[in-house]
Amino acid sequence: MEFAIGQTDGKARTGVLRTAHGEVLTPLLMPCGTQGAVKGVTPDQLRACGVRMVLANAYHLMLRPGADVVASLGGLHRMMAWDGPLLTDSGGYQVFSLAHRRKVTDAGVSFRSHVDGAAVELTPETCMAVQADLGADVVMQLDECPPGGADRAAVADAVRRSADWAGRCKAAWEARGRRASAGHEQALFGIQQGGADAGLRAESARRLAELDLPGCAVGGLSVGEGHERMVAVLDRIDDQLPRERPRYLMGVGEPRDVLAAVARGVDLFDCVLPTRNGRNGQAFTGTGRLKLRNAAFARDGRPLEAGCPCPTCRAFSRAAIRHYLLAEEMIGPTLVTMHNLAFFARFLADIRRAIEDGRLAERSAEWLARLYPSAG
Amino acid sequence: MEFAIGQTDGKARTGVLRTAHGEVLTPLLMPCGTQGAVKGVTPDQLRACGVRMVLANAYHLMLRPGADVVASLGGLHRMMAWDGPLLTDSGGYQVFSLAHRRKVTDAGVSFRSHVDGAAVELTPETCMAVQADLGADVVMQLDECPPGGADRAAVADAVRRSADWAGRCKAAWEARGRRASAGHEQALFGIQQGGADAGLRAESARRLAELDLPGCAVGGLSVGEGHERMVAVLDRIDDQLPRERPRYLMGVGEPRDVLAAVARGVDLFDCVLPTRNGRNGQAFTGTGRLKLRNAAFARDGRPLEAGCPCPTCRAFSRAAIRHYLLAEEMIGPTLVTMHNLAFFARFLADIRRAIEDGRLAERSAEWLARLYPSAG
Repeated sequence: MEFAIGQTDGKARTGVLRTAHGEVLTPLLMPCGTQGAVKGVTPDQLRACGVRMVLANAYHLMLRPGADVVASLGGLHRMMAWDGPLLTDSGGYQVFSLAHRRKVTDAGVSFRSHVDGAAVELTPETCMAVQADLGADVVMQLDECPPGGADRAAVADAVRRSADWAGRCKAAWEARGRRASAGHEQALFGIQQGGADAGLRAESARRLAELDLPGCAVGGLSVGEGHERMVAVLDRIDDQLPRERPRYLMGVGEPRDVLAAVARGVDLFDCVLPTRNGRNGQAFTGTGRLKLRNAAFARDGRPLEAGCPCPTCRAFSRAAIRHYLLAEEMIGPTLVTMHNLAFFARFLADIRRAIEDGRLAERSAEWLARLYPSAG
Repeated sequence: MEFAIGQTDGKARTGVLRTAHGEVLTPLLMPCGTQGAVKGVTPDQLRACGVRMVLANAYHLMLRPGADVVASLGGLHRMMAWDGPLLTDSGGYQVFSLAHRRKVTDAGVSFRSHVDGAAVELTPETCMAVQADLGADVVMQLDECPPGGADRAAVADAVRRSADWAGRCKAAWEARGRRASAGHEQALFGIQQGGADAGLRAESARRLAELDLPGCAVGGLSVGEGHERMVAVLDRIDDQLPRERPRYLMGVGEPRDVLAAVARGVDLFDCVLPTRNGRNGQAFTGTGRLKLRNAAFARDGRPLEAGCPCPTCRAFSRAAIRHYLLAEEMIGPTLVTMHNLAFFARFLADIRRAIEDGRLAERSAEWLARLYPSAG
């Protein structure tokens, strides 16, 4: 994997991330294809909506259908019919949010599957083996994610353990020649932890820097700490995380947070907002969100957003989409999701243009004023 | 609307049906877009699957979102983003299968909406007004559909009432200049009733013939009477229903029934089989059906059907589709539905070719032997 930085504007930068399955422009937001599918949207539709890179989840896929099954089908790209860049999350976060009867030791984490209750053991080594079988272009280290309100000792433990696990993940990844089971190159990203604690964040970053991995993620945010604390952590990443490597802020996609993070040097994002809100009938637009089930849209013949070139806006009115949502037609959630994916693709493209033009601050202020008018 | 018969093979014929929204080749099967959407599939996907004409339901759409709403959005074609030929069923069948507290008189039928319990009155005249607002290319008369096991007197009543209503529908349709509210031409089809009773079928056909409508449907079949009784009714339609007009067998799509009906002079079909079975994870293939949730498909890397050019088979394995179905990913039902729609499009295209080649009987025998091997 190569990462070439293009223009900069303060700490913000544009870049090109080159992977075994093509290249993408950064800053970029990946939609979540947790179980190997972006919910409600086929790969053809993803491309039509401007999606260029997708996240999937090793935790979900190792439990169902199983990493061995995915490998026997030729890997995750082939299984999900997505030939573009793909990233798999390690499962660390999911083990700590979904699994039952979880037990963490320095060796790894054992838990019960949320799918069928089966006992599962996840170590840095098995985590790398699973992700090698899945075959994403970017794989994530196994980390420990303490809950939002964890005390300092628990967060410190998670920092130390995550750093130890990063080293073991690196060793396992190198033992495989930094390659997927199918043979193509995989890039391993480390994950910074430390909650909202500046000292622990610094320690976590220092230990990650020693490993010199192809990329670094900022984990453990967007867990209820609030925008201000998130920003305080992000304020330091430009000094803490290698400048020439991509930086990935995990689980963040709220436009306000994206703008703040890009200005502080973040390159990659993933978030369920476009898909989850789409399924719930909430459409993102440049002037705020539309709750399409509202009676106000019953006869609204306009597209979700004027001028939007997405497949939904080219063909369907708000009233039609509202009807599909109320009538529980499957295409209702699909249509709103497609628009939201296209909205985020346009939003990130606009951010990249603003960085190239050296006017990110100005453009961010415009976005914020339009997206959150009541906050002004 | 024009209907031009091409080749014939016995009673079977190919044809071209020309409507205000383009032409289609017959014999043809329409998938059901009951509420203004073919379940789980967008119009772009419909086209990619070879679908050329769609059915929607006046009953469902008048209750939600309302025919006036559809009209204010520019009509049903525009609302559902389908610019090809469209047919709306009148609601007769639905009133008799879905509505509550139904009361039939010669004037019409009053009932409670299955959506919100509202009291609704449907007469031949309001039924035509609703369908004019919806704006399909083919509209159906209001008819009375007796249940499968109704006695002769009830079926005779339904025949008489349906014939009376056909006349009133024709008058209302002519009073509108045979046009939709949006201005384009609409063709009105009558519906033959009479259950499995040869005498009543003949009487129903005779009364319909007097009206000289652009097309005739065979209603009241596929309600549990079985293949043999259905065939016995169809044996007579070539003599009973105008030969130069399209004949539409309502609610039929089981391949065995389609083959029998085409051989007896039927041109049009509609059926929920491709979509309903698709949602349930059942795929049609030339050698029978696949229940994709079966463990047998867990590692099956083959497409649903070898050589199928549909979007699903070009990209996804049976194992991937099984995973999506078990994981309750929305694209699972969508992918199987798309394949089924493409299967039926290919099946009907093959039937048309067989008629053109004068070998429908031979080809039908081949289909039957492959689709229903245990019946041989």
